[in-house]
Amino acid sequence: MDGAIAQLGSNDGRSLVRRAMQAITDHIRNKSMRVGESLPGEAYFAVELGVSRAVMREAFGALAALKVIDVGNGRKPRVGAMDGSVIATSLEHAVDTAQITVPEIWDVRRTIELRTAALAASSRTEAEAARIVELAEAMAASRGDFAGMTRHDIAFHDAIARASHNALFVQIVSSFGPLMEVAVPSAWRTRTTEEERMVVIDQHRAIARAIADGDAAAATAAMDAHFDASIGNILQGMSQTRDRASA
Amino acid sequence: MDGAIAQLGSNDGRSLVRRAMQAITDHIRNKSMRVGESLPGEAYFAVELGVSRAVMREAFGALAALKVIDVGNGRKPRVGAMDGSVIATSLEHAVDTAQITVPEIWDVRRTIELRTAALAASSRTEAEAARIVELAEAMAASRGDFAGMTRHDIAFHDAIARASHNALFVQIVSSFGPLMEVAVPSAWRTRTTEEERMVVIDQHRAIARAIADGDAAAATAAMDAHFDASIGNILQGMSQTRDRASA
Repeated sequence: MDGAIAQLGSNDGRSLVRRAMQAITDHIRNKSMRVGESLPGEAYFAVELGVSRAVMREAFGALAALKVIDVGNGRKPRVGAMDGSVIATSLEHAVDTAQITVPEIWDVRRTIELRTAALAASSRTEAEAARIVELAEAMAASRGDFAGMTRHDIAFHDAIARASHNALFVQIVSSFGPLMEVAVPSAWRTRTTEEERMVVIDQHRAIARAIADGDAAAATAAMDAHFDASIGNILQGMSQTRDRASA
Repeated sequence: MDGAIAQLGSNDGRSLVRRAMQAITDHIRNKSMRVGESLPGEAYFAVELGVSRAVMREAFGALAALKVIDVGNGRKPRVGAMDGSVIATSLEHAVDTAQITVPEIWDVRRTIELRTAALAASSRTEAEAARIVELAEAMAASRGDFAGMTRHDIAFHDAIARASHNALFVQIVSSFGPLMEVAVPSAWRTRTTEEERMVVIDQHRAIARAIADGDAAAATAAMDAHFDASIGNILQGMSQTRDRASA
């Protein structure tokens, strides 16, 4: 836990909060705690460490923001479940403040999703394969409705990540969700004809079919073709948005 | 910023803190702020939102934990720089609490680093190529000294990520650092002969050479060979640790 905690700040208050955060994460690690298990409250750690309740409250708040713990409803804090939103928050902040660019994120997504497609083809259950095929068809059925297509599109990529049976890929792909909610409709708007939209829908169907067939190489190739086309559309969408803004 | 913030908790205090966090991130986005720029303090936002200083303090603490802002030394908070430690904290917590496994992380690392190696071969500057070669030689020179080798090994992979010229890959690779500090020495301990160690060092040299030569396919292949061998060593190291623990 050294990273985020060590750099919270350098004055005495910050250093106390940092120590308090470390004590809580040490407690979780040393007791081999699992998600959902209850932790002692602020009062316990305050006495244990000889710090004020205010310091402990701040430490619990920071760990809640990092999803290390889950607090709320006045109950005892619990060990938190990883859910991709921490990485998503980091990504959105980095994009908002021009620390990373949309094409950079797109390259990372392509890299990750070529692998989740291959793993899904090898590891998916029958139910997962059926769900992925179903989501590609749901996209086809809702074409013209950007909000519906975007929802199914994000769910499609999440379902493939889950079918990879690698929990870290699931978190990373889900962390792209909030950015996709902006980027995906913008890409769809560049596809103005029914024909252009069918091309993209058929790319999703090809990915789904390869995964259902258990063909990892075909799944990778189909995902690659999809990203090739989509990145082009998204960068075109961005430049159109810029053109409109400067017009 | 919906993700982490929306799920901080559900009682009234949490919901106020969440609103306060959102107001700060909206301020950063709407004013197109950049890293290092000063934000208004707690008092400003407290008045603006009609919430208590305590609520604002908690919101600033949570955003500092997420590296969205940088606080400390009693000065005004500033817009924070992304630095991989947020993802690292998430990863370490997920490993500590058995939400993700070490082999899962290794698959993600391999996926990411096959791409950073290829990008580095295409995009590295002369200085970056020289630094990568130098770090491979530093590993060779410090063989037998696990701490030194580990440090150079982590720096080697970080330097390749930087040479990819994709800031998000840099953050993701750096987020693996704390876990590598544990895994890498454990892998080195399984390589008991000089010959075995030279094989691994030569793998790093091959990666460095391919990047310096600007050969993306060779860089990818060399990185792949390195991960094939290292994942085997690391899983062997883990099982030895378990055997010792249960002996």
